[in-house]
Amino acid sequence: MDHFNDARVLITGGLGFVGSNLARRLVELGAQVTLADSLIPLYGGNPQNIADISDRVTVNVCDVRDRFAMEYLVQDTDYLFNLAGQTSHLDSMTDPQTDLDINASAQLSILEACRKANPRVRLVFASTRQLYGRPDYLPVDEKHPIRPVDVNGINKLAGEGYHLLYSSVYGIRASVLRLTNTYGPGMRVKDARQTFLGIWVRQLLEGQPIKVFGDGEQLRDFNYVDDCVTALLLAATEDAAIGKVYNLGSAEVVSLRQLASMMIGLVDGGRFEIVAFPPERKAIDIGDYYSDFALIERELGWAPRVTLAAGLARTIDYYRQHAAHYWESPP
Amino acid sequence: MDHFNDARVLITGGLGFVGSNLARRLVELGAQVTLADSLIPLYGGNPQNIADISDRVTVNVCDVRDRFAMEYLVQDTDYLFNLAGQTSHLDSMTDPQTDLDINASAQLSILEACRKANPRVRLVFASTRQLYGRPDYLPVDEKHPIRPVDVNGINKLAGEGYHLLYSSVYGIRASVLRLTNTYGPGMRVKDARQTFLGIWVRQLLEGQPIKVFGDGEQLRDFNYVDDCVTALLLAATEDAAIGKVYNLGSAEVVSLRQLASMMIGLVDGGRFEIVAFPPERKAIDIGDYYSDFALIERELGWAPRVTLAAGLARTIDYYRQHAAHYWESPP
Repeated sequence: MDHFNDARVLITGGLGFVGSNLARRLVELGAQVTLADSLIPLYGGNPQNIADISDRVTVNVCDVRDRFAMEYLVQDTDYLFNLAGQTSHLDSMTDPQTDLDINASAQLSILEACRKANPRVRLVFASTRQLYGRPDYLPVDEKHPIRPVDVNGINKLAGEGYHLLYSSVYGIRASVLRLTNTYGPGMRVKDARQTFLGIWVRQLLEGQPIKVFGDGEQLRDFNYVDDCVTALLLAATEDAAIGKVYNLGSAEVVSLRQLASMMIGLVDGGRFEIVAFPPERKAIDIGDYYSDFALIERELGWAPRVTLAAGLARTIDYYRQHAAHYWESPP
Repeated sequence: MDHFNDARVLITGGLGFVGSNLARRLVELGAQVTLADSLIPLYGGNPQNIADISDRVTVNVCDVRDRFAMEYLVQDTDYLFNLAGQTSHLDSMTDPQTDLDINASAQLSILEACRKANPRVRLVFASTRQLYGRPDYLPVDEKHPIRPVDVNGINKLAGEGYHLLYSSVYGIRASVLRLTNTYGPGMRVKDARQTFLGIWVRQLLEGQPIKVFGDGEQLRDFNYVDDCVTALLLAATEDAAIGKVYNLGSAEVVSLRQLASMMIGLVDGGRFEIVAFPPERKAIDIGDYYSDFALIERELGWAPRVTLAAGLARTIDYYRQHAAHYWESPP
């Protein structure tokens, strides 16, 4: 990871969950890190996420839809981690145009800015397994049909497409990672906009029961954020990754009920309850999902290292300590 | 086709090539037809296209990006043929944001308008075989991987996605047709923005040689516009088509060199020359392409009926008569 020593790195969504953890690792590796973040209250950005490294990074508050700000910021960067996004599947259905503006249109603007002002930049785009929709088979590999079940999936697919196209047509070195459920310190826990696991953590720490939708037998895989960060760094530095799409994922596949059981075991008095799907969630639910991540394992040597038990324990510890910065406790 | 008698029909891109031919057929079937068209000079809309039916249709000049106009127009329509689009692959690369605004963002607005004001509308979206990219195998069926080679393909894919999603999630009855090379009276012939065949017709009638890019051995299939219109009508009326994507195509597969030979045989003094690909076209060229259209044949009973020889003859006759309305002859 010598690549990053003194390298200029721009992270969009840099005060967000994955962005801030990536920033922390890059600072350790000696990079000059700039974090662009809109700090939209309903999204993932939170200054607390970088409280421990705030004197070692440059924060630039701006929206990826701010074309001129982005044109300025991309021009002098060696690496661009393009993580800013609207992540809520439900919000993408109630306000689809905003999702399009952020997840598709702004991505295209950023790529145009790179093409014009900095075609030598190395780019990684954070996409999502959501665009596979309801799986035809498991585990889901990168050849699985693409069938988004919500507006977010369609727009993220376009965002991916622009990155791959600018790589193949203009030689801009871009890679795409399709993240599965990522969790860990720094994730949004106020609500389920980023990950349902966030609100589960909060409910547990508030002494409320976790709510498991459906029958609780839905299978999922999870990546601890440190593993996700490692994948982002590998994708940014390995030539094999240029113009490619990789799934992240985990071999540790659990049902939501099992996950809830693991989590309640970490908090005194923790408990969960099974509740029916709200209809607006049912309409976009994808059933069982877990990834085949053999391609990134083979080509980039990546595999997750943090077990779910260890990752959940660290996550809950973090929010126990820092709760005040992530949500207001009920009076 | 009794469905259309007295039916209220809205066609976006209605003064364009396919839209105007569709309007003509619908008028014959007794429909009350409204044509929405922006008449952007570089696009396909041309009042001459409906000169013969202008007193039997309602023309509303507006852009699909005009959200309020579209919200008004969709509310009282039984059928919406969503044909307006930016069609130039090259323009999508030089001005990608405009392509996104028209081919993706405006489509999403139209669907939102339908969801809110007219969820019982029956919708057909005209997509393109361009989103398959360079084929892995031939003929290309609907299961072929999607790999757009230009911004246009990415945005058309998003446009498709919204239609299919609004069908599956909200029950809005939408169908998607992926058109192959469509040709016939009314196509843009000023330049190659809509189809290369247009400029070939013009060059021939101006006594210039047709320019065939590459080695001329690229295979293609073509649909005469009347066949395309029939497919649109079937897609709009057959319940089997709801939520579905169908390829159009033809079993009459020819090389560009063969096509050029057929065309020069129709015009005294016609000739063609083989020229190297301009680099900006080479970058987005897809090699050989022809469609497998077995799915629409099986499910909707559609197959092309007009042979290439007959269709080309009718096309050249049309432009011989109406040249003055489609381009200015050189002095």
